Amino acid sequence: MNNAALYNLSYGLYIIGTKDGNKNAGCVVNTVIQATSQPVTVTVCINKDNYTNACVKKTGEFSVSILSENAKPEVFGIFGFNSSRDKDKFAEVPCGHTPSGLPYLKEGVTGFLQCKVIGFTENYTHTIFIGEVKEAENLSSDPPMTYAFYHKVVKGKTPKNAPGFSAVPKDSKTESGSYKCGVCGHVFTGSKEEFDKLPDDYRCPICGAAKGKFIPVGN
Amino acid sequence: MNNAALYNLSYGLYIIGTKDGNKNAGCVVNTVIQATSQPVTVTVCINKDNYTNACVKKTGEFSVSILSENAKPEVFGIFGFNSSRDKDKFAEVPCGHTPSGLPYLKEGVTGFLQCKVIGFTENYTHTIFIGEVKEAENLSSDPPMTYAFYHKVVKGKTPKNAPGFSAVPKDSKTESGSYKCGVCGHVFTGSKEEFDKLPDDYRCPICGAAKGKFIPVGN
Repeated sequence: MNNAALYNLSYGLYIIGTKDGNKNAGCVVNTVIQATSQPVTVTVCINKDNYTNACVKKTGEFSVSILSENAKPEVFGIFGFNSSRDKDKFAEVPCGHTPSGLPYLKEGVTGFLQCKVIGFTENYTHTIFIGEVKEAENLSSDPPMTYAFYHKVVKGKTPKNAPGFSAVPKDSKTESGSYKCGVCGHVFTGSKEEFDKLPDDYRCPICGAAKGKFIPVGN
Repeated sequence: MNNAALYNLSYGLYIIGTKDGNKNAGCVVNTVIQATSQPVTVTVCINKDNYTNACVKKTGEFSVSILSENAKPEVFGIFGFNSSRDKDKFAEVPCGHTPSGLPYLKEGVTGFLQCKVIGFTENYTHTIFIGEVKEAENLSSDPPMTYAFYHKVVKGKTPKNAPGFSAVPKDSKTESGSYKCGVCGHVFTGSKEEFDKLPDDYRCPICGAAKGKFIPVGN
C-alpha cells in the first residue's frame, strides 16, 4: 500500500467557526464538501482533540469561511497551530458574524456558510459532522484556495490534527535550510548567518511563532 | 441565502468501482475525502438512486480511481450519464483490478484506492460511506483533475445525481450554440448548418449520445 496515492485527492481550505457560550472557537480544515443539494447539506471532518469539535457539538452550529488565494499566511498560523482554548483566534482577523451570530472571516475568503448540525458520526480520531446550510453568501470573486495551492504557492504546512497529516511528505525530504520553526515545521531557507541577522521580533511567517522557537534543521 | 457561495468549495473527480456478483458497477463522484490518517479512512457520498450505491452496500467494498487532467471526456459520459444497471461501464475503458478484484481505470488517473466499507450514514438523497483504505497505488504523476478544471477546461456538465447539481449555473446562461445534447446538456457551439453537416455517426463528446439525441438550443 502506497499512502502517497492519497496526496492526489483534491481539497479546498476552510475556517470552521463556532461558539462556546459567548466565546468564539474555530480551526482550519480541508474536509468540507457539499453532500446533498435538496436540502443543501455539507459534511466536515474535525479532529476529536480539537476544542472546536466539542464546541460544535455543544452549540449545534458552525460557520464555514471559504478561504481564497488571497488569504494571508498568518491565517493558517492563527487557526491551524493554536487552540481556541487559549485565545480568541477571530480577534486577530477581520471578523463578521452570520445571522445566527457565528464568527467568520471577512477578508481572504470567497464567502461563508452558516450550518446547523443535523447529525454526526464518530470515525476513529475524527467526527464527521453533517450540517444543513441555512445561510450562504459570497464576499469576493477571488479564486478559492485549494490545498494544492497552499502547499505549492503558500508553502504551508499541515497541522498535526489534520486527516492528511501523516500522508504529507516530511519537510526534510523536500526543503533545505538552516533553521525550522519548532511549532509548525516551516523551514527558513536562508543560511545560518542570514537567520542570525533577522531582527529579534522576527516571527514565523506561517504560524507566528517567535524567533526563539526556531531550531537548527536536522534536530 | 445565496447558493452560489457553494460553487467555491473545491473537489477532485473520481470513479467509484464495485461489484454486483460478477458484474462491475461504478459511477463518477466529486465527494471523496481523506477522513482520518490512523488508520487511513476516506468518505464518499453517493446518490441513493445510483445502482452503484446499492452495490457498495451489498459488496462492502469500493475502489476509487483518482482522475487526472488527462482523463478523456468520454469517461464522464460513460460513468456520469449512464447506469451500471444497463451496461458494464468498465468494459469501455482500460480497466485493471485491485488485489480484491474491484475494477479501476488504468488510464487518465493518478492512481487508485481499494476501500472496505466500515460504516455508512443516510443523509437525505445520498449515503455517506466510510471506507478504510486497504490498498493504494500511484499509476502516474499527472496532475489530479479538479472539479474546477472539469468545468473550465473540459467544459463538462454535472450529472443530475451529483450533490452540487442544482448549485451549478445553467448552461444557457454561459454558452450559446445551435443544438444541445438532450442527455447531458452539452452545447454544440457551431451553427445549425454546421451541425447538419456532421456525420450521422457523430456522438456527443461528453456523454456519447447519438446525433439524434440533440435538440435545438432553447427547447
